[in-house]
Amino acid sequence: MKSYRKELWFKTGERRKLINITTQVESCLLESGIKEGLVLINAMHITSSVFINDDESGLHYDYEIWLEKLAPEKPYSQYRHNGYEDNADAHLKRTIMGREVVVAITEGKLDFGPWEQIFYGEFDGKRNKRVLVKIIGE
Amino acid sequence: MKSYRKELWFKTGERRKLINITTQVESCLLESGIKEGLVLINAMHITSSVFINDDESGLHYDYEIWLEKLAPEKPYSQYRHNGYEDNADAHLKRTIMGREVVVAITEGKLDFGPWEQIFYGEFDGKRNKRVLVKIIGE
Amino acid sequence: MKSYRKELWFKTGERRKLINITTQVESCLLESGIKEGLVLINAMHITSSVFINDDESGLHYDYEIWLEKLAPEKPYSQYRHNGYEDNADAHLKRTIMGREVVVAITEGKLDFGPWEQIFYGEFDGKRNKRVLVKIIGE
Repeated sequence: MKSYRKELWFKTGERRKLINITTQVESCLLESGIKEGLVLINAMHITSSVFINDDESGLHYDYEIWLEKLAPEKPYSQYRHNGYEDNADAHLKRTIMGREVVVAITEGKLDFGPWEQIFYGEFDGKRNKRVLVKIIGE
Repeated sequence: MKSYRKELWFKTGERRKLINITTQVESCLLESGIKEGLVLINAMHITSSVFINDDESGLHYDYEIWLEKLAPEKPYSQYRHNGYEDNADAHLKRTIMGREVVVAITEGKLDFGPWEQIFYGEFDGKRNKRVLVKIIGE
Repeated sequence: MKSYRKELWFKTGERRKLINITTQVESCLLESGIKEGLVLINAMHITSSVFINDDESGLHYDYEIWLEKLAPEKPYSQYRHNGYEDNADAHLKRTIMGREVVVAITEGKLDFGPWEQIFYGEFDGKRNKRVLVKIIGE
């Protein structure tokens, strides 16, 4: 069994942003030389997310509206977590979007359906944050 | 390390439907000959889901009502994604239900608690769609 | 490839409770002797959850309020699942929080960001329930 590990770093200009990281994960896979196995891609921070969905700007706008409806940022005082911090909503948004994805590797490629793309979902940005890519296989 | 891959195909008559696929995954596991490892089961489409819960019709009815409350299908115009399409709600419903599950394999069996069953959750059906089963282990 | 399996048992005094299980998972990892690989940690029951977030009491309070808003326990009669049972809300709460996490193992340790902690989320407690820890690697 072979294993591979890499950190991807992000610093967004906005509090919230969705970034397509599929190409970066494909580069990791190529570098690993692994042909059959599994790749885990997870946010290393608890106010951000890694998820798979469509790279379509209308949908990304819908996500922003929807997540604000389910877990609004303001008023900050509605959350007990917001004593020294103001990011309780980011913890909740990330809970809905998920921490991680696991993707099959087949014949050296991400084994994807036609529209699957991997995203980093930032919900409390403007600082350096990391995603972990871990691959195991042969 | 051994690996195994299979696609399961579904075409539902309804827009939304939950289908128990546990037996099909067990058949894959038997065919793979793998006794210890992990199985990844994921939707290959971004408007459907694979998840684990109870095979109880009352609960499935509750899921339908609940998902419609959290991410309603109509009016279609409430979502920017719905220009040429009408399935923005399906992307959001799948986000709540999840893309994938990873299940332990122990002594050649799905290592499950008493009520765990694997479901394909279709939220934009009436066409051919796929689930990926990928097993790694020994 | 090596594999390791252990069940962790919990019985909470309350219907709902979040329990930090990071130390118990680290003990499993040490016992396994596995240095590189993946660990799957999943609830074996469909009314509880395993998830990763912050060990901060304010946030845990916010989770309780938030989950009750998205999937309220009462009135029990609002859910069709609640014929002989009263735990439909627990199935829905666990759906939001997730069944499982997969964590990378690197150099014999959980490969975590600075604040990642693993929690067992109980939403229908007062009875014996289990979490599965399955590790594969070398």
